[in-house]
Amino acid sequence: MRYLVGFTGSNAALLIRADDDTPVLATDSRYLTQAAQQSPDAELLIERACGPHLAATAAAVGVRRLGFESHVVTVDGHARLVAAAEGVELVAAPGLVEALREVKDAGEIALLRLACEAADAALADLVAAGGLRPGRTEREVGRDLESRMLDHGADGVSFETIVAAGAHSAIPHHRPTDAVLAAGDFVKIDFGALVAGYHSDMTRTFVLSPIADWQRDVYDLVATAQRLGREALAPGVSLSGVDGASRQVIADAGLAENFGHGLGHGVGLQIHEAPGISASSAGTLLAGSAVTVEPGVYLPGRGGVRIEDTLVVGSDDAPAPELLTRFPKELAIL
Amino acid sequence: MRYLVGFTGSNAALLIRADDDTPVLATDSRYLTQAAQQSPDAELLIERACGPHLAATAAAVGVRRLGFESHVVTVDGHARLVAAAEGVELVAAPGLVEALREVKDAGEIALLRLACEAADAALADLVAAGGLRPGRTEREVGRDLESRMLDHGADGVSFETIVAAGAHSAIPHHRPTDAVLAAGDFVKIDFGALVAGYHSDMTRTFVLSPIADWQRDVYDLVATAQRLGREALAPGVSLSGVDGASRQVIADAGLAENFGHGLGHGVGLQIHEAPGISASSAGTLLAGSAVTVEPGVYLPGRGGVRIEDTLVVGSDDAPAPELLTRFPKELAIL
Repeated sequence: MRYLVGFTGSNAALLIRADDDTPVLATDSRYLTQAAQQSPDAELLIERACGPHLAATAAAVGVRRLGFESHVVTVDGHARLVAAAEGVELVAAPGLVEALREVKDAGEIALLRLACEAADAALADLVAAGGLRPGRTEREVGRDLESRMLDHGADGVSFETIVAAGAHSAIPHHRPTDAVLAAGDFVKIDFGALVAGYHSDMTRTFVLSPIADWQRDVYDLVATAQRLGREALAPGVSLSGVDGASRQVIADAGLAENFGHGLGHGVGLQIHEAPGISASSAGTLLAGSAVTVEPGVYLPGRGGVRIEDTLVVGSDDAPAPELLTRFPKELAIL
Repeated sequence: MRYLVGFTGSNAALLIRADDDTPVLATDSRYLTQAAQQSPDAELLIERACGPHLAATAAAVGVRRLGFESHVVTVDGHARLVAAAEGVELVAAPGLVEALREVKDAGEIALLRLACEAADAALADLVAAGGLRPGRTEREVGRDLESRMLDHGADGVSFETIVAAGAHSAIPHHRPTDAVLAAGDFVKIDFGALVAGYHSDMTRTFVLSPIADWQRDVYDLVATAQRLGREALAPGVSLSGVDGASRQVIADAGLAENFGHGLGHGVGLQIHEAPGISASSAGTLLAGSAVTVEPGVYLPGRGGVRIEDTLVVGSDDAPAPELLTRFPKELAIL
């Protein structure tokens, strides 16, 4: 809805006709003013039962076939559409808008840059202020970092910040606790800023001095895998091939079992969107898509490393990706 | 899922059989450890396509009729269930768990109390620290209040805090902006704390000195309507009757058009859940349900007042509701 007509309210339906350039936006009376401001090019209908109302509207103007988002519309919602759209053939049309959203336009990339810059600046501030030190809790670090993102212009956070210290860093999606950071810990931080609806996504892993040899080895391995993944990003490359380009070096080290998630995902109006980048992904990378590259190695009970960037895939003329998350990735021992 | 078996991961399905006391919880490998910890009484199946996998499991053990949450399962998801559950009749079973959730048990009420206490304490701190004063922005006030909720033990916020100053207070669901609080403003604050999955919900409206006569009139009217709504809460009372008990006094003042939303809603694991309390609500209040009472009067371009509490409906033996949000509601001129 937001992508197509700019509307951000929580209850709406949109009717787009092949033979009419003006989309019809239905929402309820709470959003009358907001819809008029956000979607000046749409015709506005105020009605609480948005979907059925639009389906009935379509039927009334002679629409014969009506596509609906079958990956989003519930079984009960579909029954209401059927009841309202008498004489209209309802056709499952899943993922049409998600496919459009995969390739970002210049305005979207500008917003992603702003989101990534806010996250970069916040992490830089946190480190410069000594915010990553033994004695602080994961939760304190998370709150501190989130507050700094807001200071740098974020409207909010992309998702609940992950701060995982010590053995917790071996849990891919750990929620911050009152666990205290200690000397010798890995500290894995996965976080993002939200700017005008667009999400950034970045992970950095630090070591609190002193570093052990095994930590250096794991870090170097993940950093290599992450670089190989970034270098594989180019328009037309198979998604599973990008995953493999990064994953292979981890498998070669005998740690395939310790990297249990996909390499990355699209990012934009949602923190996870098309394309997925994993061993089982079909299809190829598209020029101008925004994706993450985030290999990790997790050693249960000991610790783990993930390094993640958000990048924009280049074009055929300029195939190198644009790195949006620019905070350094060199091993940092704090 | 969380209500029934305690699991909080983002991908799961649950199979409950009439002839077997052990529910089967399917989730993917990311959540193996978490599911075992959170749901020790469930049988665990690890499989990414959770729903179809459980449907096939049901078919394999001879289940003939299988209910599914038709208000949540998408059309595409349903098709996958049908394909997986050969020979099984799939029966729409919407809202079964939501209906169970309407009445809170003692443990749930204890968590709601904690959430409401964190919100109460945060707002008290904010006011005591002079945090509501001309010159601050809506956004600053919102961040300050949210930070104080975390200081008082909240895991997070219930929803994006609404801070609406001056004419913005006439917008029922205003998002905080960089607008500056000024002398003579209404400042409407709608916010909540999240504790162990349970949400609090409270609105208070302040006046920044000096107060105008019309502001006092609107405040007194809404305060009266809110008191009448609270006093109407009792087990067995019709939901629309509760709405009417509060709304009538606003209508009598000729301001029916300026109170465009329902009186309240259930609150618990979700910020909005059953029952809805509005003029069109069917059914009656149940003993032990947790609801909000939140009338408002909004004068476009001038300002508005909303006063909202979260309460637990009493029992037949002790019909008076328990007030969970205890921050004072007397007119406060700061």
